[in-house]
Amino acid sequence: MTAPFSTFGAFSACLATLPAADGAARDAARARDAVLTKPPGALGRLEEVAIWAAGWRGERPRAERAQVIVFAGNHGVTAQGISAFPAEVTAQMVANFETGGAAINQLCKVAGADLSVVPLDLEHPTADFTTAPAMGEEECLAALNAGWDAVSPDYDVLVVGEMGIGNTTSAAALAAARFGGTGADWAGAGTGLDAAGQARKAAVIDAGLARHPGTSGVRALAALGGRELAAMAGAIVRARELRIPVLLDGFICSAAAACLTAEAPDALDHCLAAHLSHEGGHAKLLKAMDLTPLLSLDLRLGEGSGAALALPIYRAALACHSDMASFADAGVAEKS
Amino acid sequence: MTAPFSTFGAFSACLATLPAADGAARDAARARDAVLTKPPGALGRLEEVAIWAAGWRGERPRAERAQVIVFAGNHGVTAQGISAFPAEVTAQMVANFETGGAAINQLCKVAGADLSVVPLDLEHPTADFTTAPAMGEEECLAALNAGWDAVSPDYDVLVVGEMGIGNTTSAAALAAARFGGTGADWAGAGTGLDAAGQARKAAVIDAGLARHPGTSGVRALAALGGRELAAMAGAIVRARELRIPVLLDGFICSAAAACLTAEAPDALDHCLAAHLSHEGGHAKLLKAMDLTPLLSLDLRLGEGSGAALALPIYRAALACHSDMASFADAGVAEKS
Repeated sequence: MTAPFSTFGAFSACLATLPAADGAARDAARARDAVLTKPPGALGRLEEVAIWAAGWRGERPRAERAQVIVFAGNHGVTAQGISAFPAEVTAQMVANFETGGAAINQLCKVAGADLSVVPLDLEHPTADFTTAPAMGEEECLAALNAGWDAVSPDYDVLVVGEMGIGNTTSAAALAAARFGGTGADWAGAGTGLDAAGQARKAAVIDAGLARHPGTSGVRALAALGGRELAAMAGAIVRARELRIPVLLDGFICSAAAACLTAEAPDALDHCLAAHLSHEGGHAKLLKAMDLTPLLSLDLRLGEGSGAALALPIYRAALACHSDMASFADAGVAEKS
Repeated sequence: MTAPFSTFGAFSACLATLPAADGAARDAARARDAVLTKPPGALGRLEEVAIWAAGWRGERPRAERAQVIVFAGNHGVTAQGISAFPAEVTAQMVANFETGGAAINQLCKVAGADLSVVPLDLEHPTADFTTAPAMGEEECLAALNAGWDAVSPDYDVLVVGEMGIGNTTSAAALAAARFGGTGADWAGAGTGLDAAGQARKAAVIDAGLARHPGTSGVRALAALGGRELAAMAGAIVRARELRIPVLLDGFICSAAAACLTAEAPDALDHCLAAHLSHEGGHAKLLKAMDLTPLLSLDLRLGEGSGAALALPIYRAALACHSDMASFADAGVAEKS
């Protein structure tokens, strides 16, 4: 199935009928967890993750095959001087991804994950959201559909990441549209703004919010987002249709994902927060989304880097659950 | 070189002459980090870890080859009823390690690490430390030397773990001997004690501390420790001689390691805290040791599990540092 969405209404309708987790598989996994050769609860968060994954992948889930997709887009709002790096870096970094020189390339190698890079019309930046919607409906749907199409059913777990100079500004605007607050509440340093730069960025976000009041969900993605943000949202929904768990990366990925819960509160039930980013608004955003990150290592790179870093943790959780011996199998005495 | 230590004095002398980190390699790594294709600092803790590792392994360190050693020992203090599991579980779990059914087996598989299991005279538990030193000098040195001998020079990074019913009691006693406080300050739930069990455990620790007052360093390991704790200490020192970084596991591993800094304050300069365990005293112990854990996932299993889980994070840090392209290499514009 390709390019399934030709209107925002069609996308919203899809969000209203997402598949649910399999409660029976979770119960079976919980029962299995209780007889594995370890004190009850001794694997902590790993046990919770494995039981959660069973709801999407069955009683003994696995995560050998991991797909990482990095979407790239350019942002008209960079005209407002809200990034420490020039806009041409987006395309330069895409070339770096393609030749294997970026952080995400090394992280995918370590994690044994397959990397796809999807540049989205880089030569045509989105509109400056302080003066117009970043994207029209057709443009936004093209990006959503590109995200949907990029997800392969052949994997056990998905990471979506992004590259786009200026996109922490879009993400902060989306977070404010979703959860309230002003530009100053959500603007961070991005790739390295100083305090004056962050103040300018906050004002730009406020201008965007004033220009597009009351927007939410997929319409917010179009008005304040960007192609790579819409693509991540499309990929996350496609993964849900395929019952493939998603590890959410940092602030930008989380902000794109948060737009989905404005339309369907359970839209991210198949997602875990891979890490807490150092980027200003991320802790607040995860809290608003009721997500607890697996890692907290002060990363703030994007590219899917924090989620790719968490892949081996996720895989380890599932491997322990699915492959450990039970007390009975191993002839180990239980708690006295 | 095998069985190098025939007296505690010889071991202490070795601790007094440990090799230091290579400051020039660290400086070179710091300079390299600054030109990699990412905003400065955007890989957060991963950058610090890679620069730190350069001090032991050179400017572009790697961690492809990882050794995990699990030492096992039995503890006479189990006679005092301080564990939720019977003492025979130590040997049963060693068999489980050897047939691949335990958590550490799955974690080593996911991390691509080689696992060695070293049972230490399981049929002869150490003495009950409330009535006598757990080990005499010769016994303790045999365990230290076994740890030393188990470390292979063919690896880039080492994880030491343990199995030993009763050993959180020994570890808590060692932590109290090292940093002060009473049994209640350091006793946790171990494999699953209730509040009454923990109170009994605290009293047993206090009895041990009263029986062996003022003991420290390798002598504390002998008086209050156990064979697997002494072996971990010996392995950590051997790794230092080989300039192999060590990822410290949870409470028990950390307590054994802490005995070394009583003799030589810099003894753990080649070690990272892999994770913060859920076991009661671990947060306080890491704080006293001035170590910041990489992971915090509420594990409390031992077996080297938390450190094995952190291996891919450590490997990822080094891979990003050593293999990423520079701005110049990749033709990416730098911060404007």
